[in-house]
Amino acid sequence: MSKVFSYDQLFDFTKNVFLKIGCSEDDAHLATKVLLSADIRGVDSHGIARLSGYVRLWDAKRINATPQIKIIHETPSTATVDGDSGLGLVVAPKAMRIAMDKAKQVGTGWVSVQNSNHYGIAGYHAMMPLEEDMIGISMTNGSALVAPTFANERLLGTNPISIAIPADTQPPFVADMATTTAANGKLEILQRKHGVAPLGWIQNKEGKPSTDPHELKAGGALLPLGGDREHGSHKGYSLGAIVDIFSAVLSGANYGPWVPPFPAYVPMPQGMPGKGIGHFFGAMRIDAFRPAKDFKHHMDKWIERFRSAKPAEGFEKVLIPGDPERETEAVRTKDGIPVLGPVVDDLNYLAEKFGLEMKVPVV
Amino acid sequence: MSKVFSYDQLFDFTKNVFLKIGCSEDDAHLATKVLLSADIRGVDSHGIARLSGYVRLWDAKRINATPQIKIIHETPSTATVDGDSGLGLVVAPKAMRIAMDKAKQVGTGWVSVQNSNHYGIAGYHAMMPLEEDMIGISMTNGSALVAPTFANERLLGTNPISIAIPADTQPPFVADMATTTAANGKLEILQRKHGVAPLGWIQNKEGKPSTDPHELKAGGALLPLGGDREHGSHKGYSLGAIVDIFSAVLSGANYGPWVPPFPAYVPMPQGMPGKGIGHFFGAMRIDAFRPAKDFKHHMDKWIERFRSAKPAEGFEKVLIPGDPERETEAVRTKDGIPVLGPVVDDLNYLAEKFGLEMKVPVV
Repeated sequence: MSKVFSYDQLFDFTKNVFLKIGCSEDDAHLATKVLLSADIRGVDSHGIARLSGYVRLWDAKRINATPQIKIIHETPSTATVDGDSGLGLVVAPKAMRIAMDKAKQVGTGWVSVQNSNHYGIAGYHAMMPLEEDMIGISMTNGSALVAPTFANERLLGTNPISIAIPADTQPPFVADMATTTAANGKLEILQRKHGVAPLGWIQNKEGKPSTDPHELKAGGALLPLGGDREHGSHKGYSLGAIVDIFSAVLSGANYGPWVPPFPAYVPMPQGMPGKGIGHFFGAMRIDAFRPAKDFKHHMDKWIERFRSAKPAEGFEKVLIPGDPERETEAVRTKDGIPVLGPVVDDLNYLAEKFGLEMKVPVV
Repeated sequence: MSKVFSYDQLFDFTKNVFLKIGCSEDDAHLATKVLLSADIRGVDSHGIARLSGYVRLWDAKRINATPQIKIIHETPSTATVDGDSGLGLVVAPKAMRIAMDKAKQVGTGWVSVQNSNHYGIAGYHAMMPLEEDMIGISMTNGSALVAPTFANERLLGTNPISIAIPADTQPPFVADMATTTAANGKLEILQRKHGVAPLGWIQNKEGKPSTDPHELKAGGALLPLGGDREHGSHKGYSLGAIVDIFSAVLSGANYGPWVPPFPAYVPMPQGMPGKGIGHFFGAMRIDAFRPAKDFKHHMDKWIERFRSAKPAEGFEKVLIPGDPERETEAVRTKDGIPVLGPVVDDLNYLAEKFGLEMKVPVV
């Protein structure tokens, strides 16, 4: 059971919640825009479904609604940013803006962030530089849910990477992916449906391959992209590790098993080596390599060639990274955003907590 | 049947071959060092086994032994390099050196290369910056062997990525991986043995999953990391695509199905949109983000924590990316490098062609 709300309804409500926890007008607006970019693009696990989770982190005094975000180390092409325990939804776009400013000056900009929190979808931040004819790169670590190849321990988050590349008449190329075989949200759906997970998604608490999605919460782990060694899981493990190191070892945030959990009720890890969670951003000016017009012409050609590839039997067409999310965005902008029953309950809880009105759904 | 040679024997022979095709003393030395870094690290498919292939490309006038490698576009943190059809084994380390010089100046350096050829193992180039306390990044495109998710056409190379990260007392973290489930070299081994490939490595000429390694040469394709959509192949496809775009669309090299093939007897693609093949390199100074000493201390802690993770049943230990290659290097430095019979035959062909002496094997 889900109810459908318009984007504007969800925007007003969410922004009011961020104002109620003490965010400035500008920060509340920015955080809302970042959070709802997940819902509008169809990444329901990372959008308004997490709003109550952010509030619980604020209740637990783990989120600072009025952070003093500052550069603590820099060179002409790099910066290390301290997020001052702010919402990742606010810290991340400000850090990406610093990367873009550096790129304007010296061709590229690279920013590693410590002392932040969950930043929404990686793709929002990676897409920011597109408007300036830059390539955007965004990654973040997260609390440990993933077992490295051969391990029976959770040591990495789902550690997503997003890379956005502008084209000319074609829409941009936007890859946005967890470095695991399957995102955690897909497992949650299977858990609710009592479905069967494909082999390669998870292992059980003995470290054996499993198809039972409930094993994940019973001491099991998500698996790195590839699933097992024979199918290249050491590559998914490497990618997740690189995200962890760029985001946290480079910035001074927590890494590996020490990354703070998103649910406020989960105790913090012991012996944390850094501050908060970490992100890493890059912005590369296209015209630092070749004239933007030439590049974008060839990106169109690249995209057109791949999109017109001969489909394998049983498939309709070959997709370009970013196509499915853009199609969802078009539909949801027109028809509204479906919000699952338990999430509506969460929003009602927030409405009551803060004395806000929940709007009547569109449908 | 293989014969064992010492590293020095193979070095002398290989360097003489590069001298015979007209390389300068310095370039012959550099090309040999890069090529044999594959053999010493156990990546046999990318080392001396390819020497006759490079010579055939030179015979076909596709390799220029005396290239004028030049920067054709630059900013303080970036450069685009024209490899002048040189050996990738020479062009690539020179391009990485430019990236490192930029990093010394402004914190990071990023170089996209056009008009090059096969550059050996990605890992050699990524490891160059380690000695200067920098993180190294190396990637290259290659001729089309891989079908994107849902496609029944080969549009991408195995497009490897390597990232090398320094530590303090621990050896460095070195990931070096094709963006496919399995490297082409593994398929060649199965073809020789008439073995069975795991599902997820290849598809047949109808675009259906296959376990017959011979289907690859009968019109089939390698599959992106993940294998199929359910196991995340759209992520492997995205990674391969990003390597292609950074290496070639950014530099002005050929991309997608237009990348020139390594075997000199395979005709060149029609309507090529760029020059040669493309690479992309990055160098990030650690101390552009935080003091190198602090970073390396935490990298040691990261590596020690992951290496001491509890192994899953049936596995001995958890590995750090780079461990297997470093162990092979230690063994082969001591005991010599095994060279397969057909490769020895190739070397004898080159010895005869150029009037060189092949040394008697150690064993």
